[in-house]
Amino acid sequence: MKRYEAFAEEIAQSIRTGVLKLGDRLPSVRQASASRSVSPSTVFEAYYLLEARGLIRARERSGYYVTAGAKTLLPEPETAARPDDDSTPIEVSELVFEILESTKMRDVVPFGSAFPSPLLYPLPRLARSMASSVQAMDPWSTVDDLTPGNASLRRQIALRYLADGVHVHTDEIVITNGALEALNLCLHTVARPGDSVIVESPAFYGALQALEGFGVKAIQVQTHPREGIDMAGLASALERHKPKACWLMTNFQNPMGAVMPDEKKQALVALLEAHGVPLIEDDVYGELYFGNRRPLPAKAWDKSGMVMHCSSFSKSLAPGYRVGWAIPGRYAKAVARLKLTRTLSASAPAQAAIADYLAKGGYDKHLRQLRHALAVQQEAMMQAVVRHFPAGTRATRPSGGYFLWIELPGDVNTLEIHRRALSLGISVAPGPMFSAQRKFSNCLRLNYGHPWDARAEAAMATLGRLLSTRGGQ
Amino acid sequence: MKRYEAFAEEIAQSIRTGVLKLGDRLPSVRQASASRSVSPSTVFEAYYLLEARGLIRARERSGYYVTAGAKTLLPEPETAARPDDDSTPIEVSELVFEILESTKMRDVVPFGSAFPSPLLYPLPRLARSMASSVQAMDPWSTVDDLTPGNASLRRQIALRYLADGVHVHTDEIVITNGALEALNLCLHTVARPGDSVIVESPAFYGALQALEGFGVKAIQVQTHPREGIDMAGLASALERHKPKACWLMTNFQNPMGAVMPDEKKQALVALLEAHGVPLIEDDVYGELYFGNRRPLPAKAWDKSGMVMHCSSFSKSLAPGYRVGWAIPGRYAKAVARLKLTRTLSASAPAQAAIADYLAKGGYDKHLRQLRHALAVQQEAMMQAVVRHFPAGTRATRPSGGYFLWIELPGDVNTLEIHRRALSLGISVAPGPMFSAQRKFSNCLRLNYGHPWDARAEAAMATLGRLLSTRGGQ
Repeated sequence: MKRYEAFAEEIAQSIRTGVLKLGDRLPSVRQASASRSVSPSTVFEAYYLLEARGLIRARERSGYYVTAGAKTLLPEPETAARPDDDSTPIEVSELVFEILESTKMRDVVPFGSAFPSPLLYPLPRLARSMASSVQAMDPWSTVDDLTPGNASLRRQIALRYLADGVHVHTDEIVITNGALEALNLCLHTVARPGDSVIVESPAFYGALQALEGFGVKAIQVQTHPREGIDMAGLASALERHKPKACWLMTNFQNPMGAVMPDEKKQALVALLEAHGVPLIEDDVYGELYFGNRRPLPAKAWDKSGMVMHCSSFSKSLAPGYRVGWAIPGRYAKAVARLKLTRTLSASAPAQAAIADYLAKGGYDKHLRQLRHALAVQQEAMMQAVVRHFPAGTRATRPSGGYFLWIELPGDVNTLEIHRRALSLGISVAPGPMFSAQRKFSNCLRLNYGHPWDARAEAAMATLGRLLSTRGGQ
Repeated sequence: MKRYEAFAEEIAQSIRTGVLKLGDRLPSVRQASASRSVSPSTVFEAYYLLEARGLIRARERSGYYVTAGAKTLLPEPETAARPDDDSTPIEVSELVFEILESTKMRDVVPFGSAFPSPLLYPLPRLARSMASSVQAMDPWSTVDDLTPGNASLRRQIALRYLADGVHVHTDEIVITNGALEALNLCLHTVARPGDSVIVESPAFYGALQALEGFGVKAIQVQTHPREGIDMAGLASALERHKPKACWLMTNFQNPMGAVMPDEKKQALVALLEAHGVPLIEDDVYGELYFGNRRPLPAKAWDKSGMVMHCSSFSKSLAPGYRVGWAIPGRYAKAVARLKLTRTLSASAPAQAAIADYLAKGGYDKHLRQLRHALAVQQEAMMQAVVRHFPAGTRATRPSGGYFLWIELPGDVNTLEIHRRALSLGISVAPGPMFSAQRKFSNCLRLNYGHPWDARAEAAMATLGRLLSTRGGQ
């Protein structure tokens, strides 16, 4: 154990035993360095590690605070240990559709949903931007805003990346119908049916469905619940399968919430570049961080144009507007042309409304509120897991996004749990949705993107009872 | 020549010689039947034929009027005579992109454009619908309006078909990002790379690009400039190539403007059904008829669910909003699922705005104005063709839509004409865009979807000079 890891573990222990409590301020880096006789960089690294594990959080200009109660400290899932990288045809779609259908019902507790509550978004404010921009809209914008898209919107997007230290050219940005279209366009630009593509294990089921629908084989590589894809596994898969692309979520990975550390992202870009394999980077959750800076996308280290970065406003600002983008590097022209032949363009009024909203300011304020709400809801769900789920339950504690990944003890079958829970008015996302081979049957993804209330608490208690009676066996 | 054809030819002759002039009212069916001693049905058939040829037009409750001046009667193109049905890989995309790029420039005369003028659309009225519907929008509609789409909009669409006598179930309608996505989803649902698909010759270049991008071979079947695809050629291609689908425009075919007569549509549906081949029907121009009733889609005769009907509001109401739909018969569920994995959903505010506009009324009034404007512009362009283009020029005279298909005498090369015209600030759509084998190099598609003005007239004179100096040889 390195010195910073030992120091971090000491602090974690203090939190676990209640010496440090929720909301307590940690010693400053200078204080800790002096009192423990360690270098400031050791303290920094220890604090970063604790932040990544969701135990503490930095607030701007005021230091680090404890964000986990003693009771909500569950061990991390062990799913990363599974070797998992066979190239395999996929048959996940039918299962996923069946489960998604159930999450559309308004009276079902939406723990299985892919979406956070729309009430967390500034829809009335966006509606005003829509009203004013559509009424002022130049009729010719219906032609001018065709792919690659509204010029003002693309500039605003480039400016946001610039503010985070990522240089992208406005010309490289292609506006799409949400990130899902961007990802599909990137995939179809670099792969053909019969090819292989690397994804995470567990992976976003939308990636598995996209590969399945396109006739592409998925190579699932084991992925750490906190630090993302296993680099050795990735290197070996690159050698053995000669994939046409690597499709990853570098920040707040769905379903586990992993964030690849910066140096790992840098190494990822270098490794893929050495193999001549493009990275399709899904960064839709990047803005939903709970710390004090946005985790960078892998795109930040892209020098050769091999990173096809994709994101959208659907999770951060404007659900339902279906405005996303690709920043596909050297493939920008090819992606734009494919977009023109597939769906022509994104909706002009939606593009104009978001451009207007961004220009008028308020986005950062909304994001701060959204992140705060999600962090509070995470803690509430975490506490409910500890309260109601069986002993031996493990859970991720992501530093952003709105999903928990739960690993249950014993031989529980979460597909069966899903069915029983649904009959009781509760949806969950069972682990096998996230695996081409239907693995992770002892895992659940739970959505904490909805304001916490008594109904949610009661639903967690019900789930806990289902799990404790070994209902899923 | 049948009796009704002879009678129609007599009237055409009267128009040609100036006996019947632009705007003159034809004898009523009863009068003509009495005075010529022919049956009323012979008169009807003759009038229908003249209407299809663009020489006369019915006005509701007031009979038939001459709509062509003596000077604008050009012979029809002969392109239908070319045998053209080889299965062929396509390489049209690069050419098409190059030409489309040129039509986006605002200062270029847009005869090569695919779009009519946005000024012909009720964009301010739509903006009001957008403003009021987005401000009243239930936040949960961002989830509820996911594919298959906004329930009110789908009901309104079903009602419009019902009013035209076509019964479609609301449940069968899948809202898409414009008709282009609907068509691509239908294609990808029933075909795989390496398969063959039948299209027209000449065909909408978007269909050729979609097939090319998907790795599907195009079988182009000769198509009559007024009556659509050749049924014998189609039957033979079905036998020889075992295609996975047939992708046609049954009404106001792009680029020629052909409308398949009702009995031909019925025969088409029966023939394809007998071969078990789905029809992907692109009906985006169906509402832009100049006569007094909407030409029916082939979907009207679909009993087995093999017709995958596609359309949109982009040409008829809301350019840039990107709201279209598929009515894919027995494939409805598969198309909806593919849509979910490709782009998730169409933009919720755009769907809500159009649903609001349709509910409030005014669509039919707008359509009447739009059709009238297009008909007037067609006549103006037709007159300019006669005035400026070389002797021996042939042209279609579609009874709807906004394209003329021009066949030039001699060995003119319209790709070269396109380049020369563009250097003079005029775009045209050269024939080879519409052929996987780059045929039709002596043909042009001209867009009359823009209000006619002195600049347009001057551009036609310039084009005429280019063509007359054999500039394209």
